[in-house]
Amino acid sequence: MHNNNIMTAITFDKSLEIQQLPYPDRKPKDAIVRVTMTGICNTDLEITKGYVPGFSGVLGHEFIGIVQEAKDITLIGKRCTAEINFGCGVCNYCTNGLERHCPHRSVLGIINQQGCFADYVSVPEKSLVHIPDEISNRRAIFIEPLAAALEILDQVTITKRTKVLLLGDGKLGLLIGYMLASTGCNLTVVGKHRHKLNYLVATSARIVQRDSFAEDIYDVVVEATGNSSALTMAMNCIKPRGTIVLKSTYAQDMQFNPSQLVVNEVSLIGSRCGQFSKAIDFLLHNNIPLEDMIDGEFSLAQGIEAFEFSSRPKTIKTILVP
Amino acid sequence: MHNNNIMTAITFDKSLEIQQLPYPDRKPKDAIVRVTMTGICNTDLEITKGYVPGFSGVLGHEFIGIVQEAKDITLIGKRCTAEINFGCGVCNYCTNGLERHCPHRSVLGIINQQGCFADYVSVPEKSLVHIPDEISNRRAIFIEPLAAALEILDQVTITKRTKVLLLGDGKLGLLIGYMLASTGCNLTVVGKHRHKLNYLVATSARIVQRDSFAEDIYDVVVEATGNSSALTMAMNCIKPRGTIVLKSTYAQDMQFNPSQLVVNEVSLIGSRCGQFSKAIDFLLHNNIPLEDMIDGEFSLAQGIEAFEFSSRPKTIKTILVP
Repeated sequence: MHNNNIMTAITFDKSLEIQQLPYPDRKPKDAIVRVTMTGICNTDLEITKGYVPGFSGVLGHEFIGIVQEAKDITLIGKRCTAEINFGCGVCNYCTNGLERHCPHRSVLGIINQQGCFADYVSVPEKSLVHIPDEISNRRAIFIEPLAAALEILDQVTITKRTKVLLLGDGKLGLLIGYMLASTGCNLTVVGKHRHKLNYLVATSARIVQRDSFAEDIYDVVVEATGNSSALTMAMNCIKPRGTIVLKSTYAQDMQFNPSQLVVNEVSLIGSRCGQFSKAIDFLLHNNIPLEDMIDGEFSLAQGIEAFEFSSRPKTIKTILVP
Repeated sequence: MHNNNIMTAITFDKSLEIQQLPYPDRKPKDAIVRVTMTGICNTDLEITKGYVPGFSGVLGHEFIGIVQEAKDITLIGKRCTAEINFGCGVCNYCTNGLERHCPHRSVLGIINQQGCFADYVSVPEKSLVHIPDEISNRRAIFIEPLAAALEILDQVTITKRTKVLLLGDGKLGLLIGYMLASTGCNLTVVGKHRHKLNYLVATSARIVQRDSFAEDIYDVVVEATGNSSALTMAMNCIKPRGTIVLKSTYAQDMQFNPSQLVVNEVSLIGSRCGQFSKAIDFLLHNNIPLEDMIDGEFSLAQGIEAFEFSSRPKTIKTILVP
């Protein structure tokens, strides 16, 4: 609670720090949420490495919490999360459900908006998303990255007959794996870490360690390693007129052979955030043990250790519990 | 005619040469066509620069001619051209009208198939395409590159409301410009050469010289310069969720910022050959002065000069007349 109007927060401004900050000022159209759980995403790690220029302040964009203050008093006390892209509300993107592409948007903990790695967070009231009681906290914390995974289905047609290759077994990669397996498509997942790939063993996916992967031809390749060299493998494995989805944050420029893209008429599609409503619907209808992916739990005060732990190659999902 | 069973041909095997070769052997399912006109394409120039590995023999894939020998005797004497991708005929691509993506295909004058820069050319009889009388020789010679330009409409939805940027005023760029203008879309064409851009002045396109182009935001960008640096301009000018079409042959690797592609969920689509039937239909219904683009005419014996002329930055379309 906000004793003395002071809260703990994990901030970044050239370096990662744990700070005691004032309880957030609630802007006119905002609600204040008492944060009960947050998740560390690769984008947070990239920011602390200096790969996402221009952001300073409270980090974090994956959270759940209890509404503390809101204009609509029926929201107070409700368990919720919030969409992370805050659009202008009037442009063509915003009026077509694509606030996440509003050119004037702020993004929670990423662009011009103080994040959720704190006891309290202020977000636009209209961005709040109620979490149904059927979804536990430790599953609900995956709503934001799961929405990002589901975004792929909004961009590419994947049916039971689609032969899909997923490259990457990181936290986002595994969510994409669960999501793709749920479509019933013909799925192969290639990763470096046996203990991570094992999460997908119970799905219909064919699991292959990178060292023993024999290149084949696929209708769709989803690249979720964040490693720019994976594009070469994706290009070698994509059928003519197939689609490669880039689904990660990338620190470096990528190099590729445009002739290969042109001759085979390949589509290379970038994919980012998705709609929370679809993630909630997915969680309600798919009994996937996402909570098992949480292998690190820290307090906000342990934020430095939490980031260090989250950066280890073996780690899957680190959560912070205020 | 094939006096003494000898013909003139332009060949490439490490260097460009004019050779006297035997009249082609007609393979069982082939027809022999007496070539009456051929066009030099950028791909031909790229081959002679060594950018397209593995090809040697008679160059050329754009031609029209008169059928000389065929199993179907009703074809003999007909004016025709031929699709340039010769598929296996049985794979999934071939049985779905996509012979141009058959993994076992040969390609006239490009992959494992002697080309048309000769007095006679042998092509699969089923690849022959009859040219309607309404289309003059000097317009029909554009069927192959025009089909490639029209391929874009097979891959990307372009309506009257689509704001399109075309980069490039080369021979393919101008054909794409004519084709895009015919859709009624909101079109801007950026090029380096005033005298080339002038061909499009009579269309609805807004014409801008590269030096005076102010970047703006477009729904679709078509990159037809063949210059890898143009991708940076395309990325700066594409709207979120917009489509960039790569429509050229590229000699070098391309470098790009994958974060920009991912954050804006941009699609990058390679585009190559198209269906000849669509090009013929386009020529029958659009009275565009393509013939005016021909600014160089040579005999086969003048092939070396013709290639040199075609390589000049100012040249638009060079034809060879056996």
